[in-house]
Amino acid sequence: MINIITSKNNSRIKQLIKLKQSKYRQEMGYFLVEGFHSVEMAYKANLLIEIYSLKPIDNLDVDQYIISKDILDKITTSVTAQGIVAKCFMKKALPISNNIIIYLDNISDPGNLGTILRTALAFNIKDLMLSKDCVSLYNDKVLAATQGALFALNVVKSDFEKLVELKNSGYSLVATSLKDSIALNELPNLKKIVIIFGNEGNGIRQEILNICDYKVNIPISNIDSLNVGVAAGIVLYHLNEKYEKM
Amino acid sequence: MINIITSKNNSRIKQLIKLKQSKYRQEMGYFLVEGFHSVEMAYKANLLIEIYSLKPIDNLDVDQYIISKDILDKITTSVTAQGIVAKCFMKKALPISNNIIIYLDNISDPGNLGTILRTALAFNIKDLMLSKDCVSLYNDKVLAATQGALFALNVVKSDFEKLVELKNSGYSLVATSLKDSIALNELPNLKKIVIIFGNEGNGIRQEILNICDYKVNIPISNIDSLNVGVAAGIVLYHLNEKYEKM
Repeated sequence: MINIITSKNNSRIKQLIKLKQSKYRQEMGYFLVEGFHSVEMAYKANLLIEIYSLKPIDNLDVDQYIISKDILDKITTSVTAQGIVAKCFMKKALPISNNIIIYLDNISDPGNLGTILRTALAFNIKDLMLSKDCVSLYNDKVLAATQGALFALNVVKSDFEKLVELKNSGYSLVATSLKDSIALNELPNLKKIVIIFGNEGNGIRQEILNICDYKVNIPISNIDSLNVGVAAGIVLYHLNEKYEKM
Repeated sequence: MINIITSKNNSRIKQLIKLKQSKYRQEMGYFLVEGFHSVEMAYKANLLIEIYSLKPIDNLDVDQYIISKDILDKITTSVTAQGIVAKCFMKKALPISNNIIIYLDNISDPGNLGTILRTALAFNIKDLMLSKDCVSLYNDKVLAATQGALFALNVVKSDFEKLVELKNSGYSLVATSLKDSIALNELPNLKKIVIIFGNEGNGIRQEILNICDYKVNIPISNIDSLNVGVAAGIVLYHLNEKYEKM
C-alpha cells in the first residue's frame, strides 16, 4: 500500500526521528536503514517493515510512505539516503555455530565497525561478537559503512565470560597484538578460532590478552599500527587463503 | 619563541582560517595539521613552521603561539586536535624512484585516502600518484586518517599520461578490478609495479583499464566489493609477503 505523509508532526515520522537514538531503538526493537542497497538487503532478510521515500519504489511488497524532501532530511542523517529510508526489525541473535568467529573489543569508530562487518561477510565469516562498549551496531554511520552486510550476519553482544566459554568448548583465542606476538603467517592451522580485534587507541584489554592462546601481528614498518579495519581485512584474507588450502 | 594571541582578528589567525580552503592552501603553499602525533611527524620532516596551542609545547624548536579554546575551535575542524595545531609547508613532489608505486584513481572519500596513505607507509611503499580528481590531500579528514604518514611519503598529482610514461619505462600496470581479472595470488612476480586502486563507486576508469598489463581481484563471497582502503591493505600485505620471499 502506498500512502502520503505531508506533516512532520505525523506520529509515524515522530517515531522515526526517535529511532535515531539508541535508547528508543532498544526499547522498540526497530532501526532505520538508508539507501537502496541496504533497503534491498533488509527486504531479502525479511526484516523490512516499511519504506519512506520521495517516490514510489517498485518490486518491494511492503507498505510505502511518500514523504517530502523536508521530512526526509529530518529522518536521515547521511548523504547516502538516496531518497529512501526504511524501518526494520532488529535481528535476533543466534547461537554461535561457525569455526571462525570475530570478537571485537571496544571498537569505538562507527566507520571501522561497519567496515569490519562488510569485510567479514565478504570473507564468509558470519558470527561476530561485540563487547558491550563497542559503538552501537545501529548507529547510522555503522550502517552506512556495512553496505547492508548486517542483515546477512549474526552479530551478538558479548563479554569476557562468553570468550572463556568458547575457549573451554575448544576454540583457540587469537589476539591481534603488537607486543609479544608472532607474525600472522606463523599462526598454526587451527580448527576453531576466535580472532580478536581491539580498540583503536588501546588495543585489546589485558584481561582478554591474558587468556589468549596466540597473539599475532601484521609485520609493518615506519609506523606503529594499521587502521583496525585494514588490519581485520588482512587477517581475514590471510585466514581465507589458508583455510582454502587446508 | 612563545607568543600569546588573544584576538580572533589577529592576522595570523585569519590566515589559518583561510587555510581551511584548498584554494588558499595552494596559493600560499601551507597547510594545517592537528594533534601531537602529526605535529611531531611534521617536525621530523622539517616541514613545521609554527605551532598554535593552548599550552606551551616542550622539545619542539619552532615559534609557538598560545591561543584560547575559542580561537582553537575556529581553526580546527576535528575532535583530534588535542589542543594543538601547526602550520606546515606543503611537501615538494619528488621524482618517482621506487619499484612499487601506488596510483589512486578518483578516490573521493577522505577517510579512505588517509587510510591508504597510512597503510602504504606501513608496508614501506613511499611513492603515491593521485589522479587530479582525488579528494584534496590536505583535507583535514585525510590528514586525521593518515596519522602523520603524509610527511614520510612522496605523493604526487598525476594523470593518464604519467601512467603511460611509467609503462613505457618498464613498470607493469596492475589494476584492482572485479571484472575479467585473476585472483591476487595468481599475479606473477614482477620487478616494477604500479598498483592501481579506483573510485569507491565506479572503480578504475576505462581509459586506464585499457592499458593495464594485469587485472587482479581479491576473491570474496556474498557481497560485491570491499572498502577500497581494506582492499589496498590486503593487496599491499600480499605484495609485501611476496617480495620478501623473492
